[in-house]
Amino acid sequence: MIKEKRNKDIKKNNNRKGFQKKEEPVIRFACLGGLEEIGRNMMFFEYENEIIIIDAGLQFPEEETPGIDYIIPNVSYLAERKEKIKAIIITHGHYDHIGAIPYIMQKLGNPLIITTAITKEIIARRQEEFPNTPKLNFDIVKAGDSRKISKNFKAEFFGVTHNIPDGFGTILNTPVGKIVHAGEFKFDYDIKGNPRGLEIWEKLGKEKIHTLLIESTGAEDQGNSISERVVEKEIEKLFKKAPGRIILGTFASLLDRLAEIIKIAERMDKRVAISGSSMKSNIQIARNLGLMKIKKGTLISLDEIRKYNDDKIVILCTGAQGESNASLMKIATGEHRQIKIKKGDSIILSSSIVPGNERSVQILKDDLSRQGALVYHYKMMDIHSSGHAPQEELKTVMKMVKPRFIFPMHGYYFMRWRNAQNAQEALGLKPSETILVDNGQVVLFTKESAKISDEIIPAYYVMVDGLGVGDVGEVVLRDRRMLAQEGMVVIIATLDRRSGRFLKNPDIISRGFIYLRENKEFVEELRKRIKSLVSRNPRHQHIESDYIKSLMRDQIGQFLYNRTKRRPMVLPVIIEV
Amino acid sequence: MIKEKRNKDIKKNNNRKGFQKKEEPVIRFACLGGLEEIGRNMMFFEYENEIIIIDAGLQFPEEETPGIDYIIPNVSYLAERKEKIKAIIITHGHYDHIGAIPYIMQKLGNPLIITTAITKEIIARRQEEFPNTPKLNFDIVKAGDSRKISKNFKAEFFGVTHNIPDGFGTILNTPVGKIVHAGEFKFDYDIKGNPRGLEIWEKLGKEKIHTLLIESTGAEDQGNSISERVVEKEIEKLFKKAPGRIILGTFASLLDRLAEIIKIAERMDKRVAISGSSMKSNIQIARNLGLMKIKKGTLISLDEIRKYNDDKIVILCTGAQGESNASLMKIATGEHRQIKIKKGDSIILSSSIVPGNERSVQILKDDLSRQGALVYHYKMMDIHSSGHAPQEELKTVMKMVKPRFIFPMHGYYFMRWRNAQNAQEALGLKPSETILVDNGQVVLFTKESAKISDEIIPAYYVMVDGLGVGDVGEVVLRDRRMLAQEGMVVIIATLDRRSGRFLKNPDIISRGFIYLRENKEFVEELRKRIKSLVSRNPRHQHIESDYIKSLMRDQIGQFLYNRTKRRPMVLPVIIEV
Repeated sequence: MIKEKRNKDIKKNNNRKGFQKKEEPVIRFACLGGLEEIGRNMMFFEYENEIIIIDAGLQFPEEETPGIDYIIPNVSYLAERKEKIKAIIITHGHYDHIGAIPYIMQKLGNPLIITTAITKEIIARRQEEFPNTPKLNFDIVKAGDSRKISKNFKAEFFGVTHNIPDGFGTILNTPVGKIVHAGEFKFDYDIKGNPRGLEIWEKLGKEKIHTLLIESTGAEDQGNSISERVVEKEIEKLFKKAPGRIILGTFASLLDRLAEIIKIAERMDKRVAISGSSMKSNIQIARNLGLMKIKKGTLISLDEIRKYNDDKIVILCTGAQGESNASLMKIATGEHRQIKIKKGDSIILSSSIVPGNERSVQILKDDLSRQGALVYHYKMMDIHSSGHAPQEELKTVMKMVKPRFIFPMHGYYFMRWRNAQNAQEALGLKPSETILVDNGQVVLFTKESAKISDEIIPAYYVMVDGLGVGDVGEVVLRDRRMLAQEGMVVIIATLDRRSGRFLKNPDIISRGFIYLRENKEFVEELRKRIKSLVSRNPRHQHIESDYIKSLMRDQIGQFLYNRTKRRPMVLPVIIEV
Repeated sequence: MIKEKRNKDIKKNNNRKGFQKKEEPVIRFACLGGLEEIGRNMMFFEYENEIIIIDAGLQFPEEETPGIDYIIPNVSYLAERKEKIKAIIITHGHYDHIGAIPYIMQKLGNPLIITTAITKEIIARRQEEFPNTPKLNFDIVKAGDSRKISKNFKAEFFGVTHNIPDGFGTILNTPVGKIVHAGEFKFDYDIKGNPRGLEIWEKLGKEKIHTLLIESTGAEDQGNSISERVVEKEIEKLFKKAPGRIILGTFASLLDRLAEIIKIAERMDKRVAISGSSMKSNIQIARNLGLMKIKKGTLISLDEIRKYNDDKIVILCTGAQGESNASLMKIATGEHRQIKIKKGDSIILSSSIVPGNERSVQILKDDLSRQGALVYHYKMMDIHSSGHAPQEELKTVMKMVKPRFIFPMHGYYFMRWRNAQNAQEALGLKPSETILVDNGQVVLFTKESAKISDEIIPAYYVMVDGLGVGDVGEVVLRDRRMLAQEGMVVIIATLDRRSGRFLKNPDIISRGFIYLRENKEFVEELRKRIKSLVSRNPRHQHIESDYIKSLMRDQIGQFLYNRTKRRPMVLPVIIEV
């Protein structure tokens, strides 16, 4: 229904364009992810026969999606219009902005990717894990560059500070005006605590910006960012205090901070070993591109650690979120081949806790401190700073850019709602000028307006599980959730086809319910019930499997519930021989 | 092994006591929960033929224990010695201190429970849900009371401020000296911000305290508590600002705060309705005991809300953690019978987020704000204060009490480790004087020492799931976790007993793996594999079920993995007819 209506609308629009040259231009804009979550960022602008996409990220699985590897944006709308796609602009190299690329590019006709050098390298490295995907085409840009992408779209790029290098914001020149995608950013403070690089926002303020798309991740956080300079100072203090080895866990993408930490180590004549392939690979990329300078001899391999005194050793590693396969967790559990915790090790967790990881990080801290390590984390001191601008910085940017409309992007509804409040407070905008929509909802931009249309584009979850993309649906997930809660019982009744009588005792298998081997009496009673259920069946001379099966599900289910107050999934099987 | 050794140790000990009268007294002390988690608090002191227990709490399930209702302490050690148990002291009415009572009292011989009036009422109300449990025996005490519990133990009780009324601390007079259990507490500040009621700690400082058992929940949090006076002021401000109805969600046990909020409502001539049975019941208990005064006419039923103007209405409700069955979530999802959100409602979430509930609270905030409500939560302003003393308050108490030893209780290892640091910083204690053990580890107190023994008492998880207590073990949980991740495939091969040949096509059932109805080709291929597997079996003339089954598990498992990169649980069933 929706799709039909939409197609009609488009036709109408196109027709009109043909006849009435003076009709005002309308840009169709929608997000396919990123508006009801942190992650899965992807959006597009459509005008006549041209589509420009920004970002193609993934989302990590949630409690409600057990067993899933990733969730990616639904690109069916774009796939149907792939010939219109002129480019995908990738703002920076985090997985919630690049992670869907290997899964969707073929469907979209492998369009040009416009991004910076380091982001390109990160995308390309990941692509190596997907041998059957097409070769990607890149157009490498840097801050200050501009590109005439198509007849109607021109993009200019400006650098922003984030917690991965080489991220950018985009000024999209469109037929309705300039739309600015601010990227993901925070302020960069100098040693004195003054923000640097605000000129770009000031400049935008003079350019009559139509709409500012601005992230909402930090929209609820009050005040300003903790300066990376402060973070570095605090880490340096801990380095000076450390009696033995230093093991610092952080995100693999925090390259600027890693570069500074390596410099601190060099100043203190310490050697640095790296554990964690993503961190190693990222540092390699940054070095290749000349973005990270490390003195000869500073980096050592993990096997060389033992050659140095403990107070000469810094180990940088992944896994500060307690991820079970990452280095720090392996170190904590004693499974790391080269690194075992010893008394006097200092562990610095230079990261915040991503919601959902609280318990893993608790286990990590417990395990490490139990073995005698001194553990420091961000709640104890300023050894981490978020990559996302909090309220005051967001408001400052809004005030400098002075757009006609604000579109709060990236975040759960409440975060974006809070960011809309920020915009209303900073600029005195009306609620209708701070646009809040959901994934898939189409916004129509004209020169003077930004209207939410009734049209909804498919934006539901596409789940990646193993090799399957999109084949795990709500049924499978619902079953997984049910199985996790109460387990299941399979009942196999082997019946004589003619007489309807049991040829053998019913077979019962259960998993995740109760341990049957320890409950033999219970199993016997269950068997009796099943037998009497089937033989009570008045129609047993003509077995109606479906009828008996639904009887079993209901009555055996009820019996199990009465006896245990649990509701395992009951799966009856009738074998007729 | 451990158990045998332990019994021998005890015998040796008892024998020695018989022969040598002058041997110095030794108290055996252990926690059965509460040292590796937040929750499941229970500990005991054993001397000669006497055991005193403090608290009997439950723990809420974790990610690793899917489908479980609660985790309770393992009381097998105590059950074997139930004739020695002289009393259970219950410090306050939170579930992590009382929740195991219905499950363990019978096993422990239904000993006397010593507690305060309000805690008794909360325990008794809950007990009504367990009709087959014995009638409990209570000894009601109040702050300032003391009890000679047995020959060797005397207890004195002193009031502490927590976020449930009538909690207390205990001075246990033992043969080795005075051991203080500080209860769970935070400082109570007056309007000027000065702490009240510190005299008790000062008094203890003059009594030569042997060991102070002090909670660690807030041990990592810096500074002092937010005063409840500040919280009340902030809530009052929001009440004044609210354009329409006020819906305030908080914990049902926060009775002091609820009392103050009702007073604010009365001052502003608003009516108060309560939604949530636990909150209603708690308020009823407090009113019955004269601990809460509410003016006639203030409380109205939910059905009466419509009779008043919106700005005259305050609704107090449970569910600020996003619990799916609690009032606020029902309001948010539109399932609440009497309360639907309207634009202009103010929602005040007067609670912090219990770790693990982040996502539920996010959904709650999203759903409410999406419907036009103004949502306020603790990160935006001081509308909640924890019930647990942070670092500065913990240190102040330590300094005032000046015990010989500190036992950090209640919390994960890292929290207790941090609290041990607090003790070392506050009192200059040596690490060996700040005792860190795990659940089940026995500590031996003599007059001059506190030593960690090698003895371990069973303290592993006892899980409550429906009617079953302890019948869900590691096997069942492991299966639940596996089923949740990848689902399962049941393969039923119906074979002729004599020939070993298939009597019919193999039956395949799967749940949580892929949706078979949409994958018919895949199922056909799977059937072929199964058939060829069984017929390739050289021994097919003499079917060896176990052999074929393990073959199926391995080879079909591998086939499924190759095709999907998923590893569902494969459950082969051989039916021989």
